[in-house]
Amino acid sequence: MEYASMSRAQLEAERQAVAAKFESLKAKGLKLDMSRGKPGKAQLDLVSDMLTVLSKPEDCVDGKTDARNYGELSGLPCAKAYFADVLGCKPEQCFIGGNASLTLMYDTVAKAYTHGLLHSEKPWAKLDTVKFLCPSPGYDRHFKISQSFGMELITIAMTATGPDMDAVEEAVKDPAVKGMWCVPKYSNPEGVIYSAETIDRIAHLKPAAPDFLLMWDNAYCIHEFEGDYVPFPDMLAICAEAGNPDMVFEYASTSKVTFPGAGISVMASSEANIKYMTDLLSIQTISYDKVNQLRHVRYLKDKAHTLELMKRHAAILGPKFRAVLDALDKEIAPLGIATWKRPTGGYFVSLDTMDGLAKRTLALCKEAGVVMTGAGATFPYGVDPRDRNIRIAPSLPPVEELEQAIDVFCTCLKLAALEKLLAA
Amino acid sequence: MEYASMSRAQLEAERQAVAAKFESLKAKGLKLDMSRGKPGKAQLDLVSDMLTVLSKPEDCVDGKTDARNYGELSGLPCAKAYFADVLGCKPEQCFIGGNASLTLMYDTVAKAYTHGLLHSEKPWAKLDTVKFLCPSPGYDRHFKISQSFGMELITIAMTATGPDMDAVEEAVKDPAVKGMWCVPKYSNPEGVIYSAETIDRIAHLKPAAPDFLLMWDNAYCIHEFEGDYVPFPDMLAICAEAGNPDMVFEYASTSKVTFPGAGISVMASSEANIKYMTDLLSIQTISYDKVNQLRHVRYLKDKAHTLELMKRHAAILGPKFRAVLDALDKEIAPLGIATWKRPTGGYFVSLDTMDGLAKRTLALCKEAGVVMTGAGATFPYGVDPRDRNIRIAPSLPPVEELEQAIDVFCTCLKLAALEKLLAA
Repeated sequence: MEYASMSRAQLEAERQAVAAKFESLKAKGLKLDMSRGKPGKAQLDLVSDMLTVLSKPEDCVDGKTDARNYGELSGLPCAKAYFADVLGCKPEQCFIGGNASLTLMYDTVAKAYTHGLLHSEKPWAKLDTVKFLCPSPGYDRHFKISQSFGMELITIAMTATGPDMDAVEEAVKDPAVKGMWCVPKYSNPEGVIYSAETIDRIAHLKPAAPDFLLMWDNAYCIHEFEGDYVPFPDMLAICAEAGNPDMVFEYASTSKVTFPGAGISVMASSEANIKYMTDLLSIQTISYDKVNQLRHVRYLKDKAHTLELMKRHAAILGPKFRAVLDALDKEIAPLGIATWKRPTGGYFVSLDTMDGLAKRTLALCKEAGVVMTGAGATFPYGVDPRDRNIRIAPSLPPVEELEQAIDVFCTCLKLAALEKLLAA
Repeated sequence: MEYASMSRAQLEAERQAVAAKFESLKAKGLKLDMSRGKPGKAQLDLVSDMLTVLSKPEDCVDGKTDARNYGELSGLPCAKAYFADVLGCKPEQCFIGGNASLTLMYDTVAKAYTHGLLHSEKPWAKLDTVKFLCPSPGYDRHFKISQSFGMELITIAMTATGPDMDAVEEAVKDPAVKGMWCVPKYSNPEGVIYSAETIDRIAHLKPAAPDFLLMWDNAYCIHEFEGDYVPFPDMLAICAEAGNPDMVFEYASTSKVTFPGAGISVMASSEANIKYMTDLLSIQTISYDKVNQLRHVRYLKDKAHTLELMKRHAAILGPKFRAVLDALDKEIAPLGIATWKRPTGGYFVSLDTMDGLAKRTLALCKEAGVVMTGAGATFPYGVDPRDRNIRIAPSLPPVEELEQAIDVFCTCLKLAALEKLLAA
């Protein structure tokens, strides 16, 4: 029975039952973490053979390049070829980075700020106002990069097919709007795959800013946990065909393919952009870890071989997501107090409560020993205007723990809803 | 006989002999590289066992931390303990980075520019003029970092005991002077070890700028190639005792200990500075490669064990430096056309020709197939006011090739000197 249809007496009785369950869960002294998209130990163990794939000096040589020595700032040719295969772009459009693609994203924005981009009239630091479009709910770390440079964050609503493109097209008429954050496949946190029409409209944007920066974070490009691999288009080619060859920078990494703490990353863009950025990056490093690049290429081989590995990740992740969705379907769906997406890839389940329940729900979770992503984190400045979006990250705990954690979550969500309804 | 004492006829005869030798060397079609401080293959092969020191999942766990997963932005505790042992500072003063300490240096300057340092009144980007002290000859990549942010580079003369401290103490009275680049042990390129008095005077500086940034690049802290290990003091403690606890950032790396293309690096400073920087760096990365940190710690163990490895590097490097110095002693010393330092550590031999010969000498070297660091590179803006300093980097070529390369170099230097003397 939906809570909204219950009498006050029924609500009170339910509240007492749920509160009792909450206390019993709290008494267990749990310490569970559903806060971040961290792979679990079983996933890390999947790729252990990578540790020894380079074991002798001669293993470390790729063509004429000794990966152990200085040089090759933009990455080993074989690593560029690998990511070009995965992303469907050209090797010469790839710049290979270190452990975190976030660092390459930060570097791009930082260079725009300190030096300007290829088509900038001046460094963004010299401008009075810089605005950045933030499709929301979105990824907190993206928004924090923009925020750390003092940009004004503009919330764009997410729809089932990607960012609200009417709003985007209107917003880019403002020359102070300098870019947009996008996670085009299995968006963080909703798991939305941008539709072909959305992608086409993005590629054909006519921003007033000549140096509009489309941050295309393809973090989950091969990260299905249910069903078959879903192909995605080469955004670099689409933007080039649309007359915007230098507008887009695409990012990806092996963080959720091999080791989150020891992966490699890629920044892909037009050859002109890559040359421009490589010149700037030559001031800040001599090279990223090329031995790890070679280790990855020798182990992952190519896209087809990597997709086979992703199937094995899916076999571990799928049951975790199903456990979350099953619990929500069983415990929450009948009550009419929240809605959620049913992603088939990525690392999150995005849930919207009735307005005004997110903070309270997560405070209760914390009280009962379950850490979740902070309420509001998925919106600019960490403020969810309707205090309703919650990002559930089921990947880290083993299934048994996860089932406990989601039980806690459902109980807390119910309790928060009952408190609110009874206070009305 | 010194060239300066020769008659014009003697000079002309000598020029013909040297020119003939130059042509014969050129005819060999050599391709030799003495341009950068790159370790040779034998050095890389020394540490091959590091490749397999972590081979199983359980090897990747350090205490409670799984190095394979996200987290531990400031580095694994064991990596901090390792570098604290090497540098003589405290583990909590260490922030562990990726493959290049240059990146940590860049990040420090970049944060000063975009966000300001702990004691900055405002980000340096908001200031009209920022000046930086560049003891010269010095390291081109240091100077380029400052230059890339539009700073004014102030040349400070290097002496046999470090930077000219009278000039430094005078310069820092200008509040626009925001910092200084230092390589305190085996300075690049001269191999000078700063004296205790110099270090003390640096620590006791009273800069007008409250956010004066002492960039203490201890790149060659354990890099003797002749004789015993030379201890160095903990600059962090010295600055703290002098009342300047937050003035200094120290840097080091394993680039010339293990693999230049796959090492780890450290930034060490006061705990207040490390906290301030860690907060800023949390926006740009989730963590550096912790598996590689653990690989290094397991392999290098501690300072004492690392110093044993450095002895084996010295056994490879020593003969190369001796080959260069022997050739200079034999071929150039009697002619009175150049002087050079005799370092016992580091990666370079710094040579000063008679004024106005550096560019010509290196152009001739290039013609004969020997690549050297560009003339002027050791000075701000790449301009050596007396066109005389040449940085010789003997580490990369095997000894046989090195002997050929230095033969070419001596021949080119003689020819350049003869051309000049005959043109006078």
